[in-house]
Amino acid sequence: MTRQLHFNLFLHDTGHHEASWRLPESDPNANLSLAAHQHLTRVAEDAKFDSVFLADSPVLWSDPGRRPAGKLEPTLLLAALAATTTRIGLIATASTSYNEPYNLARRFASLDHLSGGRAGWNIVTTAGEAAARNFGLTDQPLHKTRYERADEFLQVSTKLWDSWTDDAIVADKESGIHAVRDRVRDIGHHGTHFQVQGALNVPRSPQGWPLLVQAGSSDNGREFAARWAEAIFVANPTLAESQEFYADIKRRAVAAGRDPDHVVVLPGIVPVIGDSPAEALELEADLERLISPEYAVGTLATVLGVDVGRLRLDEPLPADLPAEDEIEGHKSRRTLIVEWARRDNLTVRQLIGKLGGGRGHRTFTGTPVQVADTIQHYFENGAADGFNIMPAVLPSGIEAFAAKVVPILQERGLFRTEYTGRTLREHYGLPRPANTLELING
Amino acid sequence: MTRQLHFNLFLHDTGHHEASWRLPESDPNANLSLAAHQHLTRVAEDAKFDSVFLADSPVLWSDPGRRPAGKLEPTLLLAALAATTTRIGLIATASTSYNEPYNLARRFASLDHLSGGRAGWNIVTTAGEAAARNFGLTDQPLHKTRYERADEFLQVSTKLWDSWTDDAIVADKESGIHAVRDRVRDIGHHGTHFQVQGALNVPRSPQGWPLLVQAGSSDNGREFAARWAEAIFVANPTLAESQEFYADIKRRAVAAGRDPDHVVVLPGIVPVIGDSPAEALELEADLERLISPEYAVGTLATVLGVDVGRLRLDEPLPADLPAEDEIEGHKSRRTLIVEWARRDNLTVRQLIGKLGGGRGHRTFTGTPVQVADTIQHYFENGAADGFNIMPAVLPSGIEAFAAKVVPILQERGLFRTEYTGRTLREHYGLPRPANTLELING
Repeated sequence: MTRQLHFNLFLHDTGHHEASWRLPESDPNANLSLAAHQHLTRVAEDAKFDSVFLADSPVLWSDPGRRPAGKLEPTLLLAALAATTTRIGLIATASTSYNEPYNLARRFASLDHLSGGRAGWNIVTTAGEAAARNFGLTDQPLHKTRYERADEFLQVSTKLWDSWTDDAIVADKESGIHAVRDRVRDIGHHGTHFQVQGALNVPRSPQGWPLLVQAGSSDNGREFAARWAEAIFVANPTLAESQEFYADIKRRAVAAGRDPDHVVVLPGIVPVIGDSPAEALELEADLERLISPEYAVGTLATVLGVDVGRLRLDEPLPADLPAEDEIEGHKSRRTLIVEWARRDNLTVRQLIGKLGGGRGHRTFTGTPVQVADTIQHYFENGAADGFNIMPAVLPSGIEAFAAKVVPILQERGLFRTEYTGRTLREHYGLPRPANTLELING
Repeated sequence: MTRQLHFNLFLHDTGHHEASWRLPESDPNANLSLAAHQHLTRVAEDAKFDSVFLADSPVLWSDPGRRPAGKLEPTLLLAALAATTTRIGLIATASTSYNEPYNLARRFASLDHLSGGRAGWNIVTTAGEAAARNFGLTDQPLHKTRYERADEFLQVSTKLWDSWTDDAIVADKESGIHAVRDRVRDIGHHGTHFQVQGALNVPRSPQGWPLLVQAGSSDNGREFAARWAEAIFVANPTLAESQEFYADIKRRAVAAGRDPDHVVVLPGIVPVIGDSPAEALELEADLERLISPEYAVGTLATVLGVDVGRLRLDEPLPADLPAEDEIEGHKSRRTLIVEWARRDNLTVRQLIGKLGGGRGHRTFTGTPVQVADTIQHYFENGAADGFNIMPAVLPSGIEAFAAKVVPILQERGLFRTEYTGRTLREHYGLPRPANTLELING
């Protein structure tokens, strides 16, 4: 069979455009609505998407004055969605800096059992002082320290997921033996950041481990991804940058001793679909007009690490911005934005317009055939194994993509017309990990 | 209207009897099955129960060799159950010793939003060294320290739940104002155990706070319950003990300045229902015969804080057991068991037989009318506001209770025939808490 595309829907309330909640058709409280998320997930499942995904940070991240800022906790929301779906994968973001491995490994193992093998974990280290201050710290841990903790967090988590062998449960009613006792082992982890003694209180789950997903693209982030990630979300504004990233990640995976096909690269794209090219461009312009520049400029200043007063709407970015290695979070996003603004010679106002829709992700604007062509071009030219679909407006954006773009790609033999697997790993063509405990004991 | 009974179903895989998984009809992996939990919850909802409940501890608690030991994380499992139910309350146990308030307060607020106001939190401090060792500690914190942390955990959580006023969200599309900024406030908590700066990233939920439930009945536990709990699960083997506990808790609530009707007392009972008294007694005896004494004696030794070698199956308990104040967990359960064994002059084997079904909870054995009579007697004689129903075998035990006992109580006008409220608080007749932030600012 031809190599197949993969699609993830990035769930985001009324859409990824920051002003999408202000459209007449939008439910401005969709962020808190199970029904709204059920609808989006059903559309994606009907279109045979590999997965849906929720971003997260344990902090009030955006200004509640300007957009829906409340976020239901992703593992709970996806557990609820597991109950009303049967095939689509469910990927939750969770922080290694502000959780305990025993609790979080257990939640993902539980989600994998509840969903019959459809759980994925987008591993984040959580930038920002505001999050740190919700957890007893006065400032965020250093970028490097966060990644070191993340690495040990994954070591502990994988040991916990493997603390029951796959054949541990025999459930012999006659003898009264439920599990074979020596197939359930304490992990006895004694590390730098964590001391964790016990076996997990959840048996090994259908996928063994949840699918491991990652999205940081700083150097630390890429190294971490090469070691652990099986799917990667990335923001690349140009084809050339996607190609560079794709080649770099596959190279790093090989260097880490892994099969490069077992690291699926999924750039984020914002599809803007019109029945004619002109209509599509008009839709894109409509969205830019909805932005409140006064609010957006504050968000931009935070990411760039400068005082908001230094950004003038109708001037280019200041020349003397802090360098990537001077800031402790959002490193790769900061660099991407700065390079984009300078390359295209954008004013702050123009830059905000571009970022309002895609926040650094590529906008694919055009007719359904044009959008499908661009997807195919990326896919066949070393830039992507699939895409993280981030519609500017929801649910209409995913409804249009499912109804108009997906059938074209199916006709071209590039995307499944039926699910062939049961688990999230099977959708992405990724192996079920062997149990490291069995390997040690075997 | 006559004062009404309340019923909670304590979900427990194939039943509360430790050997229930060995019955021919039992699914020995029901503990990991969403479908099994959906069925139990549906039976309880059809019978108009107030709530279902899941116990928990972040540790592999029971011996996986002898019974299904895996436990899906309760907030996730209840989120999944929220998606397929509409009225019944959903109460999850979670530990104040091994969670961070920002994360846990957020999960309960999320569950309350997802379920339309049906979330409850059974607050536990988590006894035991084994749990401590999963979280970087070498021994458990002292009982008193655990309760002090629990108290501050509740202070932080309630501030977080109140960090958005009920009228914070205006969602004015025209002006682009989503929430009124000064109706969302940082909590700035600086305490002994916690430093938490931010507002919660979830707006105030339908119930304001989840229903607060508690089950510890040591002196520290009762004081904590009097301050915070709105519903209390308790194990009382006799009517007299239930009456003593009921009166004591209501008195403590009044002393804490609360309305005693706003603390609902729910003793745990194990209904064993037969069509004749003889059949019911036979069912009870059948269950006792299924126990493995060698396994159960180990569990008993742990709770009593003695070496397992000191317990002889056909002798009474040793005279020189450690006193309640010498052990750091399960204080009230230890005392209850010791007093029960001594009062009824039980051998270890007989004691294990009694504990196998109810673990210190009262067994109500008899015909449907006899069971209904006992329930009514407790309810009308100062011993209970309702009951925590703990069938020895599931699903048959709740199916029998729903089909045979509930209709008798409905005919007597003691239990609802339809839900009259939408939220868990409304089912239990408890008020929605005022927003403390509004009170401070008002």
